[in-house]
This record gives sequence, structure tokens and C-alpha cells, in this order.
Amino acid sequence: MKFFQVKSVEETFKLISDQIKPLTEYITKPLFEALHFVLAEDIYAKENVPDFRRSSVDGYAVKAKDTFGSSESIPGFLTLVGEVKMGQAPHQAIQASEAMYVPTGGMLPEGSDAVVMIEHCEDLSGLINVYRQAAPGENVISVGEDMRQGELLLKKGTMLRSQELGALASQGITEVVVVRKPVIGYLSSGDEIVPIDTDKLAPGQIRDMNSMTIGALVNGWGFTFLYGGIVPDNREEYKKVAEELLAKTDCLVISGGSSVGTKDYSVDVIQSLGEPGVFVHGVAIKPGKPTILALADKKPVIGLPGHPASAVIIFHLFGKVILEQLQGLKSQEKQLTFAKVTKNIPSSPGRTDFIRVRLFEEEGQWYAEPIFGKSGLISTLVQSEGMIEIEAPKEGVQKGELVPVRIFQ
Amino acid sequence: MKFFQVKSVEETFKLISDQIKPLTEYITKPLFEALHFVLAEDIYAKENVPDFRRSSVDGYAVKAKDTFGSSESIPGFLTLVGEVKMGQAPHQAIQASEAMYVPTGGMLPEGSDAVVMIEHCEDLSGLINVYRQAAPGENVISVGEDMRQGELLLKKGTMLRSQELGALASQGITEVVVVRKPVIGYLSSGDEIVPIDTDKLAPGQIRDMNSMTIGALVNGWGFTFLYGGIVPDNREEYKKVAEELLAKTDCLVISGGSSVGTKDYSVDVIQSLGEPGVFVHGVAIKPGKPTILALADKKPVIGLPGHPASAVIIFHLFGKVILEQLQGLKSQEKQLTFAKVTKNIPSSPGRTDFIRVRLFEEEGQWYAEPIFGKSGLISTLVQSEGMIEIEAPKEGVQKGELVPVRIFQ
Repeated sequence: MKFFQVKSVEETFKLISDQIKPLTEYITKPLFEALHFVLAEDIYAKENVPDFRRSSVDGYAVKAKDTFGSSESIPGFLTLVGEVKMGQAPHQAIQASEAMYVPTGGMLPEGSDAVVMIEHCEDLSGLINVYRQAAPGENVISVGEDMRQGELLLKKGTMLRSQELGALASQGITEVVVVRKPVIGYLSSGDEIVPIDTDKLAPGQIRDMNSMTIGALVNGWGFTFLYGGIVPDNREEYKKVAEELLAKTDCLVISGGSSVGTKDYSVDVIQSLGEPGVFVHGVAIKPGKPTILALADKKPVIGLPGHPASAVIIFHLFGKVILEQLQGLKSQEKQLTFAKVTKNIPSSPGRTDFIRVRLFEEEGQWYAEPIFGKSGLISTLVQSEGMIEIEAPKEGVQKGELVPVRIFQ
Repeated sequence: MKFFQVKSVEETFKLISDQIKPLTEYITKPLFEALHFVLAEDIYAKENVPDFRRSSVDGYAVKAKDTFGSSESIPGFLTLVGEVKMGQAPHQAIQASEAMYVPTGGMLPEGSDAVVMIEHCEDLSGLINVYRQAAPGENVISVGEDMRQGELLLKKGTMLRSQELGALASQGITEVVVVRKPVIGYLSSGDEIVPIDTDKLAPGQIRDMNSMTIGALVNGWGFTFLYGGIVPDNREEYKKVAEELLAKTDCLVISGGSSVGTKDYSVDVIQSLGEPGVFVHGVAIKPGKPTILALADKKPVIGLPGHPASAVIIFHLFGKVILEQLQGLKSQEKQLTFAKVTKNIPSSPGRTDFIRVRLFEEEGQWYAEPIFGKSGLISTLVQSEGMIEIEAPKEGVQKGELVPVRIFQ
């Protein structure tokens, strides 16, 4: 019989990072459709933002030195010389001992170098009493303070979140060149698997629920999912369907048949799809040991365990990183929450354990309550909000230990 | 002049929780389109999952008592009586001292009550040597162990993540009744605001970048965004456009004009849109003090500060919760990361400060590096990955203090 040559979780992440290259197909997207795409080029600021000196408060534009020494008990006195209108240049400059009303976002008049907040002034029929002194530059956003013309605004490889899109919009940039998002093909393998809409199951059959969980994750992460159906445990037919689906997609995900049993054809079929082939078969992880990762003519192929919960956990862990790398993003895992575990959790050294947890908060502290169950059970995933990792060398975690939690979306 | 009657952040969340009611319009969605919708009804399990006793490993189905006392040095001997095929019922039951091969996920034959892993057996031409004893139930998933027929599977108000969709799929449920997702209307207010595609700005003008950031957040959270354009500082026209947009949508967001200046018409216009009207005008928060929250004939109306970064922060904080409540979800904020701050950060007591931070990891610990900048600057948001909250009573946080971080998506 065959055995796994298992890799550690760290080795697996390292291999993914080395092997998976971003798609090199770039597309131009209007800004309002570019959310969560990755930039394919550096972008430089075309203009200063703001391109005029702007007030950050409602108040009076002044020469700061005219306010020096002003206080509640000894106010300064300035002559009001009109107001600045939003979206327009001031009608005149100000001179010594003059003040001009300027609303938040309004343009400062020539001659002024600070704004005193309206709350700190009193308008007595055109004579402005100033109850606080202002430092030069106070409440003023200077030209180019937000973005300076010619500077590197966003680097190639940046994921476009709402704030990056806002920065581009402020520059009048209305379209961007981004990396095309990958299309993910999916197959379920196994004679026991039947379509989800099967009304009555025959003995030994189960519905193709992995296509639903994996499809939802792919869609939820913003990628396109192409369902290729169910292939029976027949090597030739399996290979044919997998080849056709891989040709139409950027990455193939296959659930089931990934172990080393007599009918587990996945590793052979995946190996036959193209060079360099399988680089991981078996990971020292629970659940999810029978995991396959391969590269077939530059396209990643992922063989997931058939157990529903294992498939979800492995796809969260390795699948997401693979798809993000395809999309041109450097692997980032910043969405970790820390929580205290509520019970001792034993673990076997030499294997990374992922434990499903329910999270709850008490007085500003998150707690992670382990949900134990066989790796095949989907109900344990439904009850859980994330998973904690017990690293390979550890024999477990103690009640009260602070651990990082990966949140399920 | 007018002043704010500011509410604390806690009061504001409490008011949102009390005032905003879920949409009562329900729709039926096919399962594969139901991701991130909220269930409008309880769902009970129609079937046991699994509905047959299933092996969780590749191995031999046995009577556990036949293996008692088996070990590496004194193996037990069992007679192989064939194999179970995936997706089929076993061809016969097993008797005492018999074993039947069963693959992972395969159905257990009558008479067996445990599975010995293939790694712990040896097949000597039909005589199975067993090197470990098995406990009754070992490596067996029993009928209904994952989901039991008739039990409450998912409660009304549950957000459908990938695992909930998987659980439904396993039951053969192919469509669900969910709460319709809200459509969000958006207006920018202010004479200084010009369309994003404006090529050359006149003095004092800025482009409508808030429509881009808020639109991206709405889309990124899975809701529909309807852009209503820019309204000038003219009360009648403003009111007319706002009324028309509110009529077409479930929630109206208006950026700008939310302060108490002479041209700040937002609060008056919002108050005029319907009963009960404005319930928050001004929050003790920095940035984002001039925030308006209202309810007009059951539809929430949100008045955001015009400052780009303030608008994003306020919409992250309050807007997301409002939209989730509209969608039928109880407010949940489980995506908090904890990090140590790298610098002392001062704060004014009596006001909640939100500080933008860059996150980095060192040896399993997240650190939050504050990014200081005026609230109007979008570049500070581009540099940041989240924000930390300094609660109203605190005078700041100390370097090294562990604080919760809200991640920007």
C-alpha cells in the first residue's frame, strides 16, 4: 500500500509562496468596478490634493500673529472682510487685523495663515472678538498635504480597498489597470456523491455539499466559480473531465479521492494534468491530512479531502492564499483575532491541529470555546465562528492561554 | 449660532439598536445565490445526516470485541469477506471473526460496530492481521451524528455563510427564504463638490471622492449602491433630490453639510424627510463629530461628515451596523484583532478617539503603529489597515498596551 510523504504546515505555505505565480493578464476597469482588484501598475499623483489651502473647520481665516496673546479675558479684535464661498476662490486677500469667514473645506484667502474656530470667536456687527490665539498653520490643510503631485500614490500589487479608490477618485483617475481575477473550476469526485437536488438518497449516498461550501467561499472572496459536476471513481473519465475544466479555468479544485486508498485516483489524475505536477500530498494537519497541491502548466490544482468540514478548513487555510497569489497579492493574514481558550485542549506533537471554536466576549476579552467533533461533521462548522491553530511542536493549549483565531467568513 | 447636542458612541449604538428595524420583505433564493443573506425563517432538518453508518477512515469494518487484546506483538486474525463499494450498501452482513474492507465515507455492514484503520492491519491473502484493538464506535460516524431529523438546524436571523449553505445542501434543501438586502441611496452635498471625472479643478473645488469610498464599502459589504449625484447648497433642490432618492431606496446616505454652519442644510433636510426624524446630531468622537442619524418613515438616513477620512470612519463604525440591522442581522462585531500600540497616544477625555493604525507582526504578536493626520486626509487611510478606539473616559493609551483593532476591508 501507499503512504503519504507528509509536509508540515509551514513547509506547505513556503511551497505555495514559491510555486504560485500571479496571472499576467491585465485588464482596464472603471474605478467603480475595481473594488478588491489588485493594481497591475504603479500610480503617481497627477495633482496636489488639496490643490488649494483649505480650512479644516468652520471659522475665521486670519494672520496668526494678529491673534497672539488673545484669550477669554483679553480677546483680540479683528475686522470682518466678508466670507469665502464653498467651491469658489475668495474675493480678496486679507490684510493685517482682518478676518474672513471660511467654512469647513473652504479656500483660504491670500494673506491668511491660520483659521480660528467659530466657537472661539464672537461676531459683534463686523468686529470679530477672538478668544484664543492660533498658531501659524492651525486648522489649515496646506497644498499637497494629502497627496503631492508626482509622488508614488499606490504601488503595483496593492489591493484596491475603498480608501485606495477614494484616493484615485480625488485625483480624477477614473480607470485603472488591474490583474484579472482568477476563475476557479471545481469537481467533486466519488461514486457516493449525488447532486444536491437529489430528493431521496439511496443507501451509502451523500449529496454534493462540498460544491456548495467551496463555491460560497470562492464567491465570497470575490472570485468566479465554475462548477464542473461530479465524476465517478473511474480514472479515464475523471481525467477527461478534469482536463477539460482546467483548460477553461485558472485553478482547479477537486474534492474527494485525495487519500491513498484503492479508488483514490485524485493524485494520479492531478499528476497527469501537466508539469511540474504534485508538490504536496499529505499535510501534517488535523483535520485535512489528505491534501494535494499541484501546479499543471502554471495553473494551481488543489485536491481537497472529501470530508465536508476538512474541505472547508483546508480551503480556508491554503486555498485562499493560493487564489490571492494568483490575483497578484502577496499573502497577508491580518484578520487574526486573539482569544483566551476556555478549556484545556490536548494535541499530538508533530501535527498541526485546527480546532473549531465559538467566540464570545466578556468585559472586552474574547474567549474561544472549542467545539469538538469528528472532522466529517459540518454541524461543528455551523456552530463555530473560527478556528485556532495548535502548532506542530505543541502538546496542546492550556485553559486561559491567549491564542490567535482565524475567523470564518 | 447653533450647537451640537452630542451623544456618546455608546449612546449612539444603543439608539441604532433601538431604532433600526429589519426589512420585512422576504424573498426566495436558490441556495447558490444565498451567500451572506439572512434567513427569514427557522429551518429544521428533514433527514438524518448521515442517514447510514459511515466510516471516517479507510479500513476494515469489524465487531470491536473481535479485536480486543490485539497488538503489534499478538495480532488478532479475521477473515476478509469482501469490500464495501462507495455509494452502495454492503452486499452482506459480517459475522463473528469477519472483517470487510470499507473506504472513507463508505457504509458499514450490518453486524460491524467499529473500523480498524488500514495502517493497523495487514491483508495476508484474505486473512486480516489486526495490530490494534478498536473500541465500539471507533472510526464510525453514526446515523444522525451530524444532523438529526426534526431538530432545529438554523434559526431565523442566521447569516448564511459557506458552512450554513453546506448544511442546507446536505439536506437536499435547494432554496431558502431570506430577508431582501437593502438598497442604499447616496448623495453628496456641497457647492465645492464636482464629479470625479472633472478634468481640471477650479479654485476651491474638490472631486466627489466620498461617493467612491462609500459606494465601495456598500458594495463590499454585499449591498446595492445607488448614486444620486451631487446637490448644491440650495435647500429646496437638496430636499427634492433627497426625497426622490429616499423613495427609491431603503436607506439614504448623505455626505457633507452635516455640521452647524450657515450652509449646512443636511440636518434640516433630513428632519423634513419623515417621522420620527433626527435622533443623533453630533457624536463625541474624533474624527466624525458632525454625524447625523435619522429615521424617516422607517428608513434610516445617515448624514456623514464631508471630510473624506471622517466619512469612511463613521460609515465603517455606524453605517455597517445600520445596514446589517436592516438586513435582519443582530449587530455583531467579532472581527476585532488585538495589537500592542507602538507609541503613547494622547486623547481628550469625554470624547471617543479613533486612531488609524498600520499593523505589523513580530513573533506572533500584532503591533499597531498609529498614523497621525488631520481627519480630512485620505492618504492616512490608504496607509492604514484599521483603527483603534480610545474610549471616552481615557486620556490615551500607553506604548505596549494591548488594544482591539477594527480592520478596514
